[in-house]
Amino acid sequence: MEIQGVDRSYRLLSECNQVLLLAHDENQLFQEICRVVVDIGYRFAWVGFIENDEVQTVIPVAQGGHGEGYLEDLRIELTDPERWRGPTGMAIHSGKPQIVRNIASDPNYTPWRNSANQRAYASSIALPLKIEGGASGALNIYADEIDAFDNCELALLTKLADNLSYGIMSLRARADQKKVREELEESVKNLRNSLDGAVKALSAAGEKRDPYTADHQKRVSEIAQGIATIMGLTQKEIKSIVIAGLLHDIGKMSIPLDILNKPRALTEIEMALVKTHSQNGFEIVQLIPFKEPVAEIVLQHHERIDGSGYPFGLTINDIIPAARILAVADVVEAISSLRPYRQSLGVDKALVEILQNKGILYDEEVVNACLKFFDKK
Amino acid sequence: MEIQGVDRSYRLLSECNQVLLLAHDENQLFQEICRVVVDIGYRFAWVGFIENDEVQTVIPVAQGGHGEGYLEDLRIELTDPERWRGPTGMAIHSGKPQIVRNIASDPNYTPWRNSANQRAYASSIALPLKIEGGASGALNIYADEIDAFDNCELALLTKLADNLSYGIMSLRARADQKKVREELEESVKNLRNSLDGAVKALSAAGEKRDPYTADHQKRVSEIAQGIATIMGLTQKEIKSIVIAGLLHDIGKMSIPLDILNKPRALTEIEMALVKTHSQNGFEIVQLIPFKEPVAEIVLQHHERIDGSGYPFGLTINDIIPAARILAVADVVEAISSLRPYRQSLGVDKALVEILQNKGILYDEEVVNACLKFFDKK
Repeated sequence: MEIQGVDRSYRLLSECNQVLLLAHDENQLFQEICRVVVDIGYRFAWVGFIENDEVQTVIPVAQGGHGEGYLEDLRIELTDPERWRGPTGMAIHSGKPQIVRNIASDPNYTPWRNSANQRAYASSIALPLKIEGGASGALNIYADEIDAFDNCELALLTKLADNLSYGIMSLRARADQKKVREELEESVKNLRNSLDGAVKALSAAGEKRDPYTADHQKRVSEIAQGIATIMGLTQKEIKSIVIAGLLHDIGKMSIPLDILNKPRALTEIEMALVKTHSQNGFEIVQLIPFKEPVAEIVLQHHERIDGSGYPFGLTINDIIPAARILAVADVVEAISSLRPYRQSLGVDKALVEILQNKGILYDEEVVNACLKFFDKK
Repeated sequence: MEIQGVDRSYRLLSECNQVLLLAHDENQLFQEICRVVVDIGYRFAWVGFIENDEVQTVIPVAQGGHGEGYLEDLRIELTDPERWRGPTGMAIHSGKPQIVRNIASDPNYTPWRNSANQRAYASSIALPLKIEGGASGALNIYADEIDAFDNCELALLTKLADNLSYGIMSLRARADQKKVREELEESVKNLRNSLDGAVKALSAAGEKRDPYTADHQKRVSEIAQGIATIMGLTQKEIKSIVIAGLLHDIGKMSIPLDILNKPRALTEIEMALVKTHSQNGFEIVQLIPFKEPVAEIVLQHHERIDGSGYPFGLTINDIIPAARILAVADVVEAISSLRPYRQSLGVDKALVEILQNKGILYDEEVVNACLKFFDKK
């Protein structure tokens, strides 16, 4: 050995801390520690932890140096009347470091003496590793000289073992953090799916009632998405328009089908009833605390930029942009689809309507984007 | 100074690693490092980082030892034609350690020489701290003797600075992890609220249409929750029953109100139509990918344990327990509430019905729990 005693232990502590600082994986950490211990001049080192079996066997997890099969028939069992008195067992049992000054004469070393002699282990120290309170393992170091571990070395090696224990706990905490994070990510994914499903269910619920408008909301949602994408809205804004599209007519729930599907012109009072669906829809959708103003889009989807719409007769600057998009998508889909009271008028007729009223009823930019959308299709 | 040169640096490295191993907070880490550096025998130490301002000032974040105001008019600016050539500026600029062997004669030290002389700094080293690629700060150490930093010391101190850089990154990574975790927790909370809201919206949508059964689903949900709690079901099971309760009649959406609220007995064909609501409700609710079998509970809430229910005529063992609970809650609420075609028959009448049919139409254990629930109320 080049360096001795305190110097050796001191350097060992420093190198081990270096290893601990960079550690990412528990098993690799133990291997590295054993390697460093042996590099510094000790003959053999190993780390073992108690197995949660009936006899509480200490299972080696890493070793370095002149082991030459020493660990193979170690059989340290904490429930064994003789074997638990060995240094490793005692270290774990008592939580205190155990020094064997002379392996050749220590009475507690009897079960392993021959094996140790064969490998020129003369003295040893077993340092308890305390994970979450109690000691559950030990770092075991063997020297080829008698009495290799004095008080100063004991102090430094104890510190080393404490650091190692701390390092293990910190690695486990990091692994736990990672697991928690993965679980949270999984929850977010599942909840997002459920929320999307709930929006679909709400949309489907309305359409279950009125098969004539089945898929109207879905198609409006798709057209509005196309317009919003061409207009360069953010992903979040587009998502909120898609959802608002799927739900915009949910408020029709409270209007009798007889009126909704009436094959003649509506009376003034019937029309007033139909117009309540924006407000009704708002009241239903606002029960869902979306971050984006989905309920407001539903509320305003029949407003027109010249103030001729309902329920409030808002003018362009008071209508949120997403509602101006939904308004155009809704009109285009309605005109181009079959209704109970008339045939489909076709997409062309629908586009003529929005073009004729561009800048009057409908937002100019939205109409342009809508024309582009159908042009592409 | 007690120890010199390499020994000193070696011990310093070891102590700093110890500090790094236990570090929880960046500022406290820098303070501790400065303290350790001075404890080991150096005269002064400080850590500084570049501020993202126009002139790129190096701002001290921690110091230890005989500073005596040295940092107060330091004014190291990386854009200053003279001052960036000092050791700290050069260390950050070049990413390499800068040794000043003799402060008294080094030409690049001119701006700070007087101030350093007053504080007996004779030589110094500036060690770059490399955070995410480039150097953005430096650890600066001053000795009271000329030429205190030789090649061996340089190597060990460079390692120290590298460890410190690594430690900072690792602390920041941990802080980032914590932030990501908090954001995920926030998302989960918000999404849960949104999903709860969506269930309420779906429930409300049905009730918008048919004010006669408004609140029926809510009350059924409460009764079912009470029964499930008395029966000792898990929180998750109870939650799924609460949701199923809120949505169990959503399938009535497609049945004309004229039939639903008909003040006379239904014809066979009308009754057949009413019975479709279990299946219709299932189809709507199963669009939401709940972990628990919410849609199945809705599907089975009109099954009866003797096989006389609908849609499938399942017998007790084929009906999921949650659906057996919902069945009883639904019957009790329906009998005890006002209907368009009759007065409320009262809770007592409702309890007589389930008691008379206990073990015949309704699950015995559920009926017992229901009686207990109303007894408590």
